[in-house]
Amino acid sequence: MSLLVVGTMAFDAIETPFGKSDKIVGGAATYIAWSASNFVTQINQVAVVGEDFPATELSALAARGVRNEGVQIKKGEKSFFWSGKYHMDMNTRDTLDTQLNVLADFDPIIPESYQDTEFLMLGNLTPAVQMQVIKRLKNRPKLIVMDTMNFWMEIALDDLKKVLKEVDVLMVNDSEARQLTNEYSLVKAAKKIMGEMGPKYLVIKKGEHGALLFHEDSVFFAPALPLEDVFDPTGAGDTFAGGFIGHLAATKDISFENMKRGIIYGSALASFCVEKFGAERLREITKDDIENRVQEFVSLVQFDIELVD
Amino acid sequence: MSLLVVGTMAFDAIETPFGKSDKIVGGAATYIAWSASNFVTQINQVAVVGEDFPATELSALAARGVRNEGVQIKKGEKSFFWSGKYHMDMNTRDTLDTQLNVLADFDPIIPESYQDTEFLMLGNLTPAVQMQVIKRLKNRPKLIVMDTMNFWMEIALDDLKKVLKEVDVLMVNDSEARQLTNEYSLVKAAKKIMGEMGPKYLVIKKGEHGALLFHEDSVFFAPALPLEDVFDPTGAGDTFAGGFIGHLAATKDISFENMKRGIIYGSALASFCVEKFGAERLREITKDDIENRVQEFVSLVQFDIELVD
Repeated sequence: MSLLVVGTMAFDAIETPFGKSDKIVGGAATYIAWSASNFVTQINQVAVVGEDFPATELSALAARGVRNEGVQIKKGEKSFFWSGKYHMDMNTRDTLDTQLNVLADFDPIIPESYQDTEFLMLGNLTPAVQMQVIKRLKNRPKLIVMDTMNFWMEIALDDLKKVLKEVDVLMVNDSEARQLTNEYSLVKAAKKIMGEMGPKYLVIKKGEHGALLFHEDSVFFAPALPLEDVFDPTGAGDTFAGGFIGHLAATKDISFENMKRGIIYGSALASFCVEKFGAERLREITKDDIENRVQEFVSLVQFDIELVD
Repeated sequence: MSLLVVGTMAFDAIETPFGKSDKIVGGAATYIAWSASNFVTQINQVAVVGEDFPATELSALAARGVRNEGVQIKKGEKSFFWSGKYHMDMNTRDTLDTQLNVLADFDPIIPESYQDTEFLMLGNLTPAVQMQVIKRLKNRPKLIVMDTMNFWMEIALDDLKKVLKEVDVLMVNDSEARQLTNEYSLVKAAKKIMGEMGPKYLVIKKGEHGALLFHEDSVFFAPALPLEDVFDPTGAGDTFAGGFIGHLAATKDISFENMKRGIIYGSALASFCVEKFGAERLREITKDDIENRVQEFVSLVQFDIELVD
């Protein structure tokens, strides 16, 4: 069940209609690791941080089975920093500040002990770095899942398209799927991505409106849990990705049926993530909490219609 | 299984990114009747039209069991007319023209033969007219379902609140639920509507993002079917309502479990409606088409997770 996760480990400062955080630990790979560690006992983490990154965070993750041999700590440098403000709908946000810092020349190192990886999760990151990770693995993993964002479509589309050719599952949100394909219909966008761009599976994240999983002519939909309050959506997409790949890696089953379960686990984890600032809630939840939340998803969509043949 | 439907029967002229219709037959009660007639053999229709309304439409509906004794035809007057243009997202639209015509002083007549009605569907209409219909029924129906819209919240909120006190199920879209309650969270909006305003059930329609059914502490979610093309969303909400109440009236079962099925049938019918201009597609579909579409909904959300106790 070896799982390699690559992505940012960083600082965020977040404003929402409900409050404002200090500079807190964030980053795609951080959320993915917290989330996936509910399913697998070992995660091989690849990232780069500055000297300012708290050792307590790395040791807290290590206690959850997240190995940090591949996490480079750059002396005298600062970690990536992002600051943003969410609008009332919690689906749109303004970036207030971005400081690349150590991310500017991230050269991902894959320790020898990571080489047996079966599952690779490429968190949102410069496409060229995602590609380097793939190339530096001696054997192709059984499943490569990739997250990306509109920003890379605007400034590094060619690199992005090259990585797409190498991955099995692409994970984007609805507006990114539209931007990547110039198709407004998500069904048409999915056909174009799976037919022409590389990935054989596509996950489209729609935030509070749930998520879609496409493969060949099949489509699966999982709602987001209707929540009384969404406190902070930062990291929800990464947490979703962590639950998805974590479940797949734990079960070693990459069938469409099992990916559906991965989507449900991902959605359940994401529904916890948004309840508090940053990854705070993810540090608290237990296996029981997760199972109870999954049961809520079952109740939410379960219906019983007797169809006449 | 007596079902009374009240609402507009009218003309629409529609522009979408994909085309432009002539002046075609529309109106909430028209869509509801076409949709519900797939489930029940008799519908008691209450509406008002002008001399310009095509007799062929009334006879086509009559052939489907839609009685028009309660449809007033105003000599020398014109039917209600609406014209609108949809944006690319198909969820937002601009009204280009509204001509009230016969609707300006609609005094709904309930024929004696309609008095035994068990199910009442109040299509979107002036709240005062909806109230008159309720008052003119000698016995309260077993279930009253009401649709409304933001327009009435702006110009007739007091009247609307009075009708709300009389109904069992309110059907609105997400922005209307927010507007009615001043709550952004749909879960909080639902609690307020069911706790303070009258309805014990709430259906929130989210267009391409599906629909939610709330009752006490239970919530059910049905997705919209991901479609390659949404050609014209006009009437989709009314068609959804018609499928919902049609299924309930046909089964005479107003349990939460059966309402879930109603939501699925409503969603299935709505997914046909948007495939062509106006109610055109609704005239073509067969019982088999509907069952096949419902099967697609089953596949779309079905997953199998074994939970540990």
